[in-house]
Amino acid sequence: MQIIIINGPNLNLLGKREPEVYGHQTFEDYFEQLKTTCSDVELHYFQSNHEGALIDKLHEVGFSYDGIVVNLAGYTHTSVALADAIAAIPAPVVEVHISNIHAREAFRHHTYTGAKCKGIISGLGLKGYEFAVKYLQEL
Amino acid sequence: MQIIIINGPNLNLLGKREPEVYGHQTFEDYFEQLKTTCSDVELHYFQSNHEGALIDKLHEVGFSYDGIVVNLAGYTHTSVALADAIAAIPAPVVEVHISNIHAREAFRHHTYTGAKCKGIISGLGLKGYEFAVKYLQEL
Amino acid sequence: MQIIIINGPNLNLLGKREPEVYGHQTFEDYFEQLKTTCSDVELHYFQSNHEGALIDKLHEVGFSYDGIVVNLAGYTHTSVALADAIAAIPAPVVEVHISNIHAREAFRHHTYTGAKCKGIISGLGLKGYEFAVKYLQEL
Amino acid sequence: MQIIIINGPNLNLLGKREPEVYGHQTFEDYFEQLKTTCSDVELHYFQSNHEGALIDKLHEVGFSYDGIVVNLAGYTHTSVALADAIAAIPAPVVEVHISNIHAREAFRHHTYTGAKCKGIISGLGLKGYEFAVKYLQEL
Amino acid sequence: MQIIIINGPNLNLLGKREPEVYGHQTFEDYFEQLKTTCSDVELHYFQSNHEGALIDKLHEVGFSYDGIVVNLAGYTHTSVALADAIAAIPAPVVEVHISNIHAREAFRHHTYTGAKCKGIISGLGLKGYEFAVKYLQEL
Amino acid sequence: MQIIIINGPNLNLLGKREPEVYGHQTFEDYFEQLKTTCSDVELHYFQSNHEGALIDKLHEVGFSYDGIVVNLAGYTHTSVALADAIAAIPAPVVEVHISNIHAREAFRHHTYTGAKCKGIISGLGLKGYEFAVKYLQEL
Amino acid sequence: MQIIIINGPNLNLLGKREPEVYGHQTFEDYFEQLKTTCSDVELHYFQSNHEGALIDKLHEVGFSYDGIVVNLAGYTHTSVALADAIAAIPAPVVEVHISNIHAREAFRHHTYTGAKCKGIISGLGLKGYEFAVKYLQEL
Amino acid sequence: MQIIIINGPNLNLLGKREPEVYGHQTFEDYFEQLKTTCSDVELHYFQSNHEGALIDKLHEVGFSYDGIVVNLAGYTHTSVALADAIAAIPAPVVEVHISNIHAREAFRHHTYTGAKCKGIISGLGLKGYEFAVKYLQEL
Amino acid sequence: MQIIIINGPNLNLLGKREPEVYGHQTFEDYFEQLKTTCSDVELHYFQSNHEGALIDKLHEVGFSYDGIVVNLAGYTHTSVALADAIAAIPAPVVEVHISNIHAREAFRHHTYTGAKCKGIISGLGLKGYEFAVKYLQEL
Amino acid sequence: MQIIIINGPNLNLLGKREPEVYGHQTFEDYFEQLKTTCSDVELHYFQSNHEGALIDKLHEVGFSYDGIVVNLAGYTHTSVALADAIAAIPAPVVEVHISNIHAREAFRHHTYTGAKCKGIISGLGLKGYEFAVKYLQEL
Amino acid sequence: MQIIIINGPNLNLLGKREPEVYGHQTFEDYFEQLKTTCSDVELHYFQSNHEGALIDKLHEVGFSYDGIVVNLAGYTHTSVALADAIAAIPAPVVEVHISNIHAREAFRHHTYTGAKCKGIISGLGLKGYEFAVKYLQEL
Amino acid sequence: MQIIIINGPNLNLLGKREPEVYGHQTFEDYFEQLKTTCSDVELHYFQSNHEGALIDKLHEVGFSYDGIVVNLAGYTHTSVALADAIAAIPAPVVEVHISNIHAREAFRHHTYTGAKCKGIISGLGLKGYEFAVKYLQEL
Repeated sequence: MQIIIINGPNLNLLGKREPEVYGHQTFEDYFEQLKTTCSDVELHYFQSNHEGALIDKLHEVGFSYDGIVVNLAGYTHTSVALADAIAAIPAPVVEVHISNIHAREAFRHHTYTGAKCKGIISGLGLKGYEFAVKYLQEL
Repeated sequence: MQIIIINGPNLNLLGKREPEVYGHQTFEDYFEQLKTTCSDVELHYFQSNHEGALIDKLHEVGFSYDGIVVNLAGYTHTSVALADAIAAIPAPVVEVHISNIHAREAFRHHTYTGAKCKGIISGLGLKGYEFAVKYLQEL
Repeated sequence: MQIIIINGPNLNLLGKREPEVYGHQTFEDYFEQLKTTCSDVELHYFQSNHEGALIDKLHEVGFSYDGIVVNLAGYTHTSVALADAIAAIPAPVVEVHISNIHAREAFRHHTYTGAKCKGIISGLGLKGYEFAVKYLQEL
Repeated sequence: MQIIIINGPNLNLLGKREPEVYGHQTFEDYFEQLKTTCSDVELHYFQSNHEGALIDKLHEVGFSYDGIVVNLAGYTHTSVALADAIAAIPAPVVEVHISNIHAREAFRHHTYTGAKCKGIISGLGLKGYEFAVKYLQEL
Repeated sequence: MQIIIINGPNLNLLGKREPEVYGHQTFEDYFEQLKTTCSDVELHYFQSNHEGALIDKLHEVGFSYDGIVVNLAGYTHTSVALADAIAAIPAPVVEVHISNIHAREAFRHHTYTGAKCKGIISGLGLKGYEFAVKYLQEL
Repeated sequence: MQIIIINGPNLNLLGKREPEVYGHQTFEDYFEQLKTTCSDVELHYFQSNHEGALIDKLHEVGFSYDGIVVNLAGYTHTSVALADAIAAIPAPVVEVHISNIHAREAFRHHTYTGAKCKGIISGLGLKGYEFAVKYLQEL
Repeated sequence: MQIIIINGPNLNLLGKREPEVYGHQTFEDYFEQLKTTCSDVELHYFQSNHEGALIDKLHEVGFSYDGIVVNLAGYTHTSVALADAIAAIPAPVVEVHISNIHAREAFRHHTYTGAKCKGIISGLGLKGYEFAVKYLQEL
Repeated sequence: MQIIIINGPNLNLLGKREPEVYGHQTFEDYFEQLKTTCSDVELHYFQSNHEGALIDKLHEVGFSYDGIVVNLAGYTHTSVALADAIAAIPAPVVEVHISNIHAREAFRHHTYTGAKCKGIISGLGLKGYEFAVKYLQEL
Repeated sequence: MQIIIINGPNLNLLGKREPEVYGHQTFEDYFEQLKTTCSDVELHYFQSNHEGALIDKLHEVGFSYDGIVVNLAGYTHTSVALADAIAAIPAPVVEVHISNIHAREAFRHHTYTGAKCKGIISGLGLKGYEFAVKYLQEL
Repeated sequence: MQIIIINGPNLNLLGKREPEVYGHQTFEDYFEQLKTTCSDVELHYFQSNHEGALIDKLHEVGFSYDGIVVNLAGYTHTSVALADAIAAIPAPVVEVHISNIHAREAFRHHTYTGAKCKGIISGLGLKGYEFAVKYLQEL
Repeated sequence: MQIIIINGPNLNLLGKREPEVYGHQTFEDYFEQLKTTCSDVELHYFQSNHEGALIDKLHEVGFSYDGIVVNLAGYTHTSVALADAIAAIPAPVVEVHISNIHAREAFRHHTYTGAKCKGIISGLGLKGYEFAVKYLQEL
Repeated sequence: MQIIIINGPNLNLLGKREPEVYGHQTFEDYFEQLKTTCSDVELHYFQSNHEGALIDKLHEVGFSYDGIVVNLAGYTHTSVALADAIAAIPAPVVEVHISNIHAREAFRHHTYTGAKCKGIISGLGLKGYEFAVKYLQEL
């Protein structure tokens, strides 16, 4: 069973950006932990700040993988192209946001990409990724 | 450790309403399963179609319980009073929706109550309740 | 054949509120007349100012009665929860408004609940209830 | 007692347009039935796809007839001129829509013309015409 | 002379909710003080988190009392039903808000209920209740 | 010098509609007076309730007449087609409204047709027609 | 094979209106050329400034012709009635605009009628009619 | 009979601002002409760029003059205070705009002040002032 | 203790404007009464129709007075500059409106200036000034 | 004569995505056919999911090619940058959409890029590309 | 070479208002420094809280000075009259804001006056004035 | 001291695009001049049409450089991802636009990225870059 986590813009800064606030853990560190927690599934990870590279990756994995977890960050709220990519592939997709997007600025309340996903987990921190993987495993 | 699930209007119809679509399982049935899955926490359940009764319950448990899972259904999108109730209590609250509210009518994309919660799980079916309970346990 | 009329908030004041304008006839008086007019159907009547009680009643009768006439007054324009209740039950529902909601304030032009009903009769006075009952009888 | 039914654009296609859906009955057929049902009133019928012709007809009958039933179809939502015509004449007018306009596209929820009528019946099928005639008779 | 104060949702938490911020005084404590200050009027108090119970109470007192002070909290901004209840009763009503609703979130700037009251006092703390009572006394 | 007054829907009812309010003078009566007042210009008059007939007339006179006065009534606010017709012809056009459109319903504040005219006179009663003719004469 | 071109308001002025800009060619001239270019299809042409006449024509041809090309000009943006007419007939319809409606005023970006057509060609000048005819031929 | 013309901000620049476009005639020059044309009325003139000074002047003359012509320029679209001043005085007021405000930027289509006047003349150049004076004379 | 009442545009007309409605009492008369009622505070009064003069006065008193009562009338709804002035001074400010601004036109529901005040009293007539003074005294 | 077709995000999935709906033909297959049909022009093809790569390509060809056909898919509705790129180059550009964008979700009705093109063909399937090429050839 | 800085409402409080935040430097102090920095230009300074006085000053200097720097503070967002004044004068104008208006409340994102200026400098503190002067010098 | 200028989409066309309007100077030419003018700072330059590449560059330099000047062109108005990138890095950022964005189309008045910058310079041509560099130097 193959599941991939695809992170969008600025998420490569986790652990580096305001570490006194967000902690010193990078997403790569967390991902190693997650692989241990979900040892019964083959987990992959991809991050890019490029909308096009994110679409390319969705096309590449979307016809063969068993599930996809996306956190498209800023593109969540603005990208019809990414939403179309999610709608075009047969693999089930779950959207994750580390913070609660409904508790932030109004322009973050809307999600083009989430509307094309199975579901959305928002505000549960990094734990949201684990829940998303588990949901896809059980599907 | 005490956690309660509070369901809002019409969720009492699960298992009765269009069973060929939603299945014959009532929320009470599911709740029994969930208690087995989460045997290390004292789980409670409350359902009401009355906005006021939901507020009363939040007040009753919100100062002593360790966590609250809410699915306020139709009141999610319209109730400032319930959002104020959630903001007024110290217990952490997680909002769950069985279906993906961002994939439905535009008036369901907005959530007054979710904006006052720790986070929101939407579209992962009944599984969302389990994730919410687990998140609150680990808090 | 069983049909029920469910009236929402403030409609209990008919006959009491500005009687020089609205007349001295209460809805209960009118209902007695209506039962005479529609003697071939078993007519019931329920009124509440409580949104939750109205939902409870819709659930109670919605799986067994042959038709429901609703006038949800102020809740018409604001209640997603009541609209969901109407959508969840198999009984056919007709919405009635005594005054013409499109000739009043802009916020009364929108109807959440009416969108889930078979149809809407607005502005024909108490006569609208009689037409609604007759429509449901012939269905 | 003279009452007229005035139908607007495309309603001449009833019985011809998608007969497997709307049935093979034309409005003319229905009108013959209706005259039998309402034999105590002199019933007239007029249909036009021309906004101007509909206004002309309202002017022609609006000062002498005892009541007017209108279904202005697509003009309902866009015509200030027809709304002004209804407001200008002393005859009472009732608006009918065969389908429930509040259950269709958002631009059909608004009614310029209905705001100037006594009331509106929407979604009760052809039965709505009969109720409208009966309401006007009893006025 | 009989005047009643009707408080809406969550106001029962005063003195309990964040006491280091809002103080340890409950509304009941304040109400005792107020009765002393306004000893020439018979003062009553009612609180409920239930929209329907608030409407019921308005109906019960609205035809016999000399004045009503309301603070409908979250229902202020969303309840057409409560606004209709205020409009339906002959007793003069004054709306009070402890905080300044125009200095808070945009959705609190609008008041359905206040539009049907004599006037609104907002942001003057608990003192606003005293002014409201005095205004009604002098009416 | 040839100038024409083109009146739109419902203006044929002047003198007939609510005569106790608008007076018993028809537009035809007024037009006779106006011809006397403006005896140095060849004045024509056209009225129709048909949007298409109004466009046809603008085309017919718009390439040869010296000026056009229009009062397109309800079409003023809704007709892109009439606005395009005015923009397409070389004759100068002045828009007249008997009542002050900015003191009426919000949907009457906007004028598609007036935006394509030389100018607009609104609220000065029938006197507005005389001013419009005089302005066109002096052009 | 029978195809008709239906032109709406003001298009009869082509060749007459600002000829130094739009040229001296009338639509009738262009239509003669087009018949030569598309000699393998029976081409018809209809133009009217009357919304009602356009609807009548759509009804007349819409059940027997093999295709319809419409350029409804100003009615494109305002006519629900014409959009309903297109939706009611079985013949395939293509919408043409000589200029690019998305490069003009905001109110021309919306098309009620185009939403009910197979497709829309906008901004390619008179050439758009030829493409539309060819598309319908190949259907 | 006393009538005053009150001009608002920037109108003192007429004749000075872009004279090749607007001409070399100042409003003072035009006013002298106007006094000759309307010799049977006592004409006054006031101009200020100060919203407060314009309100003061309206108060000063509004209880004794027979009519007021205002061109409040930029304040037209933004000043509730000036609109209130016009509404507060008994003298009839006519609003004039030299250019057609409906053919300019969208924010100039709205007029707070014009909504409180008898009528509005827009786009007829300086001639609009003469018509406004004549209208007030005949009132 | 020094408190000042600052009244904005058109409030100088009280007692003069429609006296049969608003009474013959000017604000100056009322102010004399108020000084008697609040004899334990040094009360001042300032009125201007000039936005700039109102800002100047707020600056002049805002750093030394103990409280300010403002009724900025029409400027309430449009003046960012006055709101900034209130925010810039240390003196506490209370906003008063004689009528209930939420029961009037929609553009009066918004208050730029009130959002920067301690609180707002609206609709309690001249009594609102007295309450505002008393509130500031007790602060 | 050199013309290029530039396809945007997700169009590389044609033939692969839901082949039972969209068919098994890839765009590359279609492109080979098109080269045969338009053998008198040198046809090029470029596809990318990267907004930046699409801009780069427009810059590369926009100063030397004779025409460009774009289908920018999801970027059509959101990309000011691509619209600016089209506006910056001298080559004529035609926008094509395979489906009718006005018959889909509301956010697809707006086109930033199409507003800068000569014209738009929408809803005519792959045939739209052929028409676009032919239009550019004849320019 | 003559350049003037025109400051709008509340800017006279610089150095006085919250000195622990904004510092003890008044604008007059800063202006003395600036004159030293820009010693090759004749620098003037004007401040007023009166919209009308600001317009008067723009008229006075706008036909003879070589450049104008404006910071119209709260009037920036609300004054069509000041925007018209800037558009009416030949002198080049640059708008300065000390804070970043796009990082503040939504109503400060819009600038009527800036739209008529050469350019806008926002958020660079008092340094913005120096840049504006230098830009005008080099023009 | 290290400062970088980051230019977004289409700015590579400066000097090439409409040279008769924008001049023959490329940004590279201007950058050489600027390095001479600001010889006391180490200036770098980066341009890309790729949103992702711009984010990558901001991450690369944002933790070590002393200042960043951005002109993100079309992405300014649409990119939440770029705004998040600016907010995530410690280096101070100044936004520059060559033209005045508030004097162009409405969709250019909003800036996601500028809201996260220290300040914005708009409309001062290439000079804006020099001012931005100088501001960052003095910080």
